[in-house]
Amino acid sequence: MDKDLILGIDIGGTNTAFGVVDRYGNILTRGKISTSVFSSFDDFVSALKHAVVDAMSAERLELESIYAIGVGAPCVNYSSGEIVGAVDLPWPSPIPLTATLSREFGAPAYADNDANAAALGEMRYGAGRGLTDVIVITLGTGVGSAIICDGHLLHGNRGLAGELGHVTIYPYSERECSCGRRGCLETYASARGVVATANKILTLSGSPSLLSDKSPLTTKRIAEAAAMGDSIALKVWEETGRVIGKACAEFAAFSSPEAFIFFGGVAKAFSYFEKSIRKSFEDNLLWIYKNSDIRFLTSSLPEADAAILGAAALVS
Amino acid sequence: MDKDLILGIDIGGTNTAFGVVDRYGNILTRGKISTSVFSSFDDFVSALKHAVVDAMSAERLELESIYAIGVGAPCVNYSSGEIVGAVDLPWPSPIPLTATLSREFGAPAYADNDANAAALGEMRYGAGRGLTDVIVITLGTGVGSAIICDGHLLHGNRGLAGELGHVTIYPYSERECSCGRRGCLETYASARGVVATANKILTLSGSPSLLSDKSPLTTKRIAEAAAMGDSIALKVWEETGRVIGKACAEFAAFSSPEAFIFFGGVAKAFSYFEKSIRKSFEDNLLWIYKNSDIRFLTSSLPEADAAILGAAALVS
Repeated sequence: MDKDLILGIDIGGTNTAFGVVDRYGNILTRGKISTSVFSSFDDFVSALKHAVVDAMSAERLELESIYAIGVGAPCVNYSSGEIVGAVDLPWPSPIPLTATLSREFGAPAYADNDANAAALGEMRYGAGRGLTDVIVITLGTGVGSAIICDGHLLHGNRGLAGELGHVTIYPYSERECSCGRRGCLETYASARGVVATANKILTLSGSPSLLSDKSPLTTKRIAEAAAMGDSIALKVWEETGRVIGKACAEFAAFSSPEAFIFFGGVAKAFSYFEKSIRKSFEDNLLWIYKNSDIRFLTSSLPEADAAILGAAALVS
Repeated sequence: MDKDLILGIDIGGTNTAFGVVDRYGNILTRGKISTSVFSSFDDFVSALKHAVVDAMSAERLELESIYAIGVGAPCVNYSSGEIVGAVDLPWPSPIPLTATLSREFGAPAYADNDANAAALGEMRYGAGRGLTDVIVITLGTGVGSAIICDGHLLHGNRGLAGELGHVTIYPYSERECSCGRRGCLETYASARGVVATANKILTLSGSPSLLSDKSPLTTKRIAEAAAMGDSIALKVWEETGRVIGKACAEFAAFSSPEAFIFFGGVAKAFSYFEKSIRKSFEDNLLWIYKNSDIRFLTSSLPEADAAILGAAALVS
């Protein structure tokens, strides 16, 4: 029997998803267990192993064909393989993540935080295939990022590289960030930032809009209104793209990427702000980077697969 | 005879310096030839070889003991080993730098641009020894940088990573940069930027100052006035440090460095703005990076040695 399969595991606060992945990035079998019901981490790993064996058996696969494990989780120290201070997980820190998985499954385990795993999955199996210099930006509740330069995912001191959501774009902005500072990219490009932009434009504009009623604004509603041609909604996305494009122009001077790849809920509205990102990027870019065809992409992985493939991609 | 020596070469527009370096970073012999007098690159390399042989003979060293060559030069494409578009060099592009040196000296040659070479020299032989995550910032006529993350010098697409002098610090600044944009770090932290800050403070302030006479302002004069306790000069450096500290706080969010190392003419006045950098850095830093003892250092290599050791450090 060949040992040629990778077990990819994505540990979230509520559920943990796993998949058995072949060398081409096909998920041969998959499953899910609860994360939160297990009071001890050892019990959780035992239950996970049972679930993996069951799922593999159903496809006539054997546990012994797994040669390595990749695992994405919150607050992972990638060098020690421990989880430290993950408030969404029910177990005390430090959690000996890779050591326990290695022992239980009899294969080496590699761990990183979930955002880095997602970026590596995109590089190996998705929109980043064939590229070596990419900045992945997650536009969601917050704004996260992962920087791949010269083919390496940057970790930096204490694994804290790539906090691009907290680069200051407008130092004198009135927008306060969750980090306590002002004018961070996150205050414009997160879901909350986009809603703040919508509220501002609605207040300043007298025009009628699908967004003018009293129901709560969400990025989904703003995208739907844009789809119907609502001029206010279109302006919200244009303004969002303008700030993101300016931010990307600054980021280019750091790692000289070939592409930016966008993830997350806000990125679902990408088609409404792609043009504005590109224009603002070109307007703000340092001349040496011009004419180098820097691309703006979104994730090309099916949503249900991205976290599992990302975890699998941690195995180098 | 052991092949255990590196030839380090620093090609500048006027002169080319070289040194033969042992594995401990000792320069065993050194020399210099004119760059600009040779109308062909091949003639230049022949003359360089003669000069190297002469310098080595004087120390009873043989050319055959050189196992590799490192060369720093302007506008080097580090992957092709060619110089392209260096306006200060007298030869047409592309200049086949590493290919010609390898052939002439019978040893593999490694090339990078001079700023990257200087950074690697500092990492291997100077203030960066033992560190893996460092941002090197050159404060001179312009502001250059080199980023070392996870032990790697970042090159990025087309080798253009690390243009931190052109990250925008104040988007609405009145200061125009040489790059055509506004509010770049360079407009505050280059020699010209510091002089602009001095002129602004002199104009706004009514206080008498050693800097108030009509002779041209230079960073050297501003440093000398600060050394004599001139309050305007001290304020100029304080303001310079404030902007650099803010910039470094932004840069931390990219690569999570352990240290910043400053090079160049303006860095000679470091003692006058070190305190201000640190305060502004702490004031602007994202909380996750706090309490991690990020250091602010200046080059620890003798000025005459830095370029040669930097070139030698290109040999990995």
